[in-house]
Amino acid sequence: MPLGAVPLPAHPTLPSAHGGQHDGIFMNIGAYTFSQFHGIAEEFHGCAAPGLLIGGYMVELAKGMLPEGTLFEALAETSKCLPDAVQLLSLCSTGNKRLHVRDLGLYAVSLYDKKTGLGVRVSIDPAKLYAYPEIQGWFMKEKPKHAQDIVELEREIEEAGHSICKVQRVQVDKIFLGHGHMGTIGICPRCGEAYPLDHGPQCLGCQGQAPYTTLDPES
Amino acid sequence: MPLGAVPLPAHPTLPSAHGGQHDGIFMNIGAYTFSQFHGIAEEFHGCAAPGLLIGGYMVELAKGMLPEGTLFEALAETSKCLPDAVQLLSLCSTGNKRLHVRDLGLYAVSLYDKKTGLGVRVSIDPAKLYAYPEIQGWFMKEKPKHAQDIVELEREIEEAGHSICKVQRVQVDKIFLGHGHMGTIGICPRCGEAYPLDHGPQCLGCQGQAPYTTLDPES
Repeated sequence: MPLGAVPLPAHPTLPSAHGGQHDGIFMNIGAYTFSQFHGIAEEFHGCAAPGLLIGGYMVELAKGMLPEGTLFEALAETSKCLPDAVQLLSLCSTGNKRLHVRDLGLYAVSLYDKKTGLGVRVSIDPAKLYAYPEIQGWFMKEKPKHAQDIVELEREIEEAGHSICKVQRVQVDKIFLGHGHMGTIGICPRCGEAYPLDHGPQCLGCQGQAPYTTLDPES
Repeated sequence: MPLGAVPLPAHPTLPSAHGGQHDGIFMNIGAYTFSQFHGIAEEFHGCAAPGLLIGGYMVELAKGMLPEGTLFEALAETSKCLPDAVQLLSLCSTGNKRLHVRDLGLYAVSLYDKKTGLGVRVSIDPAKLYAYPEIQGWFMKEKPKHAQDIVELEREIEEAGHSICKVQRVQVDKIFLGHGHMGTIGICPRCGEAYPLDHGPQCLGCQGQAPYTTLDPES
């Protein structure tokens, strides 16, 4: 159901999300099986973190609700795991500036039309976790890591798919639309590096914002 | 030459970097040929942006200067392109919080020991671009995009490899060491989502920091 075509109900019942095994067939994560995405997640993120696996379902749910062909950007409300689900399943990345993070500690992601800001926000609905005790224990941090049953947790994640999600249509704030331009580039007279002249007579690093100290005598 | 084994000269001459064709053999980007990395960049970033291709050489140069087996994090001083080179060539990503961005508009990246903050900073040295007019035109924004010869620009990037880089040993600021913990999780009484209780009686979204407005009546 593309966004805009049919209004979402206030509390949407998601297609094929029966809160369980989806008619006995486990849900893929976009073009990937759960197992394939598990492998891709490990390779990119270092491990197939539960949040990244759930994030895969969240991102695919959001993608499916945008009108076909929408050029979208993404806004994650946590910096933990979810941004990588976006990067693995869309062309939004940190380095192309189509992935934005405003870290509010909320496990939610919005995908939105990059021109209008109209889009869909997907979050985890804690009220829907009752059937998934391992997910609940992990998500609500009720269980310390060593007490988690990771095999059962992953099984529940695959079984739940996107049935544990909440969906909202949203208008994303203007600050996340459009990208700034760098303006003219010059050479910093102090360090010799290239920098946007808008920043002043020296680069921001030489103005005291360098996040490091150098260890070599002359550099 | 691993960092720490032999001190870097103040203005290091890089191994196999003769400022040209590297004895007639074009330089790989880590495990990839230039052409392979070009393809991977397109797939992840949407296009093989020049900054991403150069960034590949920068990241590999930095990796090679860390002692073998160092568990490192990355700090990019621009949000443009370079963060994606880090994500494609290391296990540092936005979502695992091992990639940090402090956007100073400087084309530089540091890889550093995640415990000590000791590492290496690689930037582009504008003084070394004289032999590469297309790179210079692009990097210094002397040429508008439509006037760039992208084929020649990519040829120069492959030819230059990491020979256009500057390397510094650095101590990265403490703020980039270690990750915070979320503390106890609760349910926001207003929106019903899970949030870190440290944030107060409601989640930060309901406290006015939500980066969107909802379009559905009841959500």
